[in-house]
Amino acid sequence: MNFSKFGQKFTQPTGISQLMDDLGDALKSDQPINMLGGGNPARIDAVNEVFLETYRALGNDDANSTNELSSTALTSIGNYSNPQGDAAFIDSLVGFFNRHYDWNLSADNIALTNGSQNAFFYLFNLFGGAFNDASANNDSQTVDKSILLPLAPEYIGYSDVHVEGQHFAAVLPHIDTVTHNGEEGFFKYRVDFEALESLPALIEGRIGAICCSRPTNPTGNVLTDEEMSRLSDITKRYDVPLIIDNAYGMPFPNIIYSDAHLTWDDNTILCFSLSKIGLPGVRTGIIVAAPEVIAAVSALNAVVNLSPTRFGAAIATPLVNDDRIKQLSDNEIKPFYQQQATTAVRLLKEAMGDYPMMIHKPEGAIFLWLWFKDLPITTDELYEILKKKGTLIVPSQHFFPGVDVTQYPHAHECIRMSIAADEQTLIDGIQVIGDVVRALYDGK
Amino acid sequence: MNFSKFGQKFTQPTGISQLMDDLGDALKSDQPINMLGGGNPARIDAVNEVFLETYRALGNDDANSTNELSSTALTSIGNYSNPQGDAAFIDSLVGFFNRHYDWNLSADNIALTNGSQNAFFYLFNLFGGAFNDASANNDSQTVDKSILLPLAPEYIGYSDVHVEGQHFAAVLPHIDTVTHNGEEGFFKYRVDFEALESLPALIEGRIGAICCSRPTNPTGNVLTDEEMSRLSDITKRYDVPLIIDNAYGMPFPNIIYSDAHLTWDDNTILCFSLSKIGLPGVRTGIIVAAPEVIAAVSALNAVVNLSPTRFGAAIATPLVNDDRIKQLSDNEIKPFYQQQATTAVRLLKEAMGDYPMMIHKPEGAIFLWLWFKDLPITTDELYEILKKKGTLIVPSQHFFPGVDVTQYPHAHECIRMSIAADEQTLIDGIQVIGDVVRALYDGK
Repeated sequence: MNFSKFGQKFTQPTGISQLMDDLGDALKSDQPINMLGGGNPARIDAVNEVFLETYRALGNDDANSTNELSSTALTSIGNYSNPQGDAAFIDSLVGFFNRHYDWNLSADNIALTNGSQNAFFYLFNLFGGAFNDASANNDSQTVDKSILLPLAPEYIGYSDVHVEGQHFAAVLPHIDTVTHNGEEGFFKYRVDFEALESLPALIEGRIGAICCSRPTNPTGNVLTDEEMSRLSDITKRYDVPLIIDNAYGMPFPNIIYSDAHLTWDDNTILCFSLSKIGLPGVRTGIIVAAPEVIAAVSALNAVVNLSPTRFGAAIATPLVNDDRIKQLSDNEIKPFYQQQATTAVRLLKEAMGDYPMMIHKPEGAIFLWLWFKDLPITTDELYEILKKKGTLIVPSQHFFPGVDVTQYPHAHECIRMSIAADEQTLIDGIQVIGDVVRALYDGK
Repeated sequence: MNFSKFGQKFTQPTGISQLMDDLGDALKSDQPINMLGGGNPARIDAVNEVFLETYRALGNDDANSTNELSSTALTSIGNYSNPQGDAAFIDSLVGFFNRHYDWNLSADNIALTNGSQNAFFYLFNLFGGAFNDASANNDSQTVDKSILLPLAPEYIGYSDVHVEGQHFAAVLPHIDTVTHNGEEGFFKYRVDFEALESLPALIEGRIGAICCSRPTNPTGNVLTDEEMSRLSDITKRYDVPLIIDNAYGMPFPNIIYSDAHLTWDDNTILCFSLSKIGLPGVRTGIIVAAPEVIAAVSALNAVVNLSPTRFGAAIATPLVNDDRIKQLSDNEIKPFYQQQATTAVRLLKEAMGDYPMMIHKPEGAIFLWLWFKDLPITTDELYEILKKKGTLIVPSQHFFPGVDVTQYPHAHECIRMSIAADEQTLIDGIQVIGDVVRALYDGK
């Protein structure tokens, strides 16, 4: 069959499609796999118990009603929401955010999407791609605008979302050597503001929005409050929005260990997700933004999906209403991943501490980012070797949307490793990585 | 904020956005509303009882397991599927279709989407829009292809899905006067094959796919087996796929009263939905097609949504496995809507039988399509009058994607009326419509 150019673009093999296919194949495989490659959150029993209890309650909360079929579960699965998303959950989120922050939100500030990826598909096409050229004499002249990623590496899932071409600009990081809990062997990326502020595309009006994930997927970096404040100032100076991918951030799932604060104003587009509290299957993303952005997202929901899926909203609403979502995040989810990070760092140091491996300072999210400086092969090649040995990680070059990685060796020297797996998988996977990497450095 | 051209296109008010906003406002309103405008399916107790029983079972099916947190419900909400969709549900659908049809499907023939609208967003952009011009000397030359709707009117939700422009061609129908259960006052649309086969766009290679809904939303028309067979022949002659929107069709929800059969081959793209069996909130669409189409849809799922939502798959899987989805459709859903259609026809005849109202022969779906021939005002204006009187229907002009409705009076003389409402709402709504329409014809 003949596909359109749109179809041809999206059926090209992409970084994310390869990743997803490998993960899917691994889950179907008969062979044991050390799955350090995926983005699936961990199963945390204390959290799952609350989900299950809530699930059961939603199917029984009509017990005292005159209509035995009026349970919240049936109402949720049996009715469309409007395109903005489940109204009860949006009201619940308005109350929650206004309780914990001074943002003074109304329902016009929140829309739901079918997960964060869906939100970024909308936002990057709303703010990147072809724009009418305001300085031109007629409507047919366009200017091409990009999404500016102030700190590469960034999330792999951003790469392919533009409906036509790719529209990213990225700034390479400062790489600082840092300690972590008093230990050596760590680095931290920092925004190169000098390069950012002198970027011709920014100065010349060819940037449509600035976007970062915080904590960053894949690195576990958390941009500092000062960095965020400077980014916010720059977006206002150039009259473009600041999009923050908060999938791992505050107040839920709150997988963030550094001293950081969350701010919002009407030039900020904050994206939340239910995935990393442990509900990825329900595909529920939350956008907090100015009403005109919410109206645009709602319009896109109507056309692309008719309306967002509702069940995630149903199960999260009671947890948001009584702040349990925050308590679970603070008391269960964050400590779990912090412990996992500590374990993985210890295992990595034991396996490769005497080799030129550096670990990005773990400040949050559910990954470690490893830098194998001067490794004799690219990490794309390392990925293939590890895959053959039953250990899945993600090589770094796919995490540099907007960067010409052929000119940037660092982009071929890192890997992303999930820390959501159980301890035995961490032990087994890191042993395989260690064996392979040591042999490569040793020239064997 | 400045939106891209993509953003400007999708934030224009559209037929579907107006419809969805009005429906949403109506549901929030304090005033009683006769809701005959929406596409929400009816609440059918016998069906909802099965959904609720299944829902509860999914949350308890780990009772005999060693891990009390291994219920299907938790597994579904707590894990991503791969981009093709929930693998267990796809396997279950393969078995179901191969039990009931001679299609010989494998898992490579099925992908899930976040509802049917999401499927059509993908398919119409895969097969409509800019194509590389195979006859040109270089890659930069493109040819613009349209989705051919062989029988207008068609579904309102198709209109706005193209990421750039609108790419539809449509053929106006033959309008035959027919009887229904021996009664006069009915008409039926038939495909004008002479006009279709002589369409320059088709002959000259500017059609990317042919698409129809069967039963048709909005009319309740069911294209005959012979019409479908001719359409299939034409698509093969021009090497384009035949896309069938089967949201109301066989084997579920099977809201179809005429003698019709469902066929599939690898040039056919069949789209199913869980919405009209009563699960619109779970947003689950099913595409049955050749593997290359399934691969393209999976790739789009990865980019647009990461992966489809899973809970609809979880709740439908047991009903598909033991054919209850078919039994519920045959024994509960289809008879319910057939009775609703009979009731609504009777009420309409009582209210306007002496006036130039014609009803499209009700052959399926959850709507009646009324034609007010030579009404002194457009049905857009009628819609506004009825809305002020608390009765919502949908005016006809939005159901003609690909038709220049300024040149086609019939497109302004019809309305779509849902029959999913309870009997009192049908009585009250039809009374309002009757009062207004009679007064208009009477010149009052």
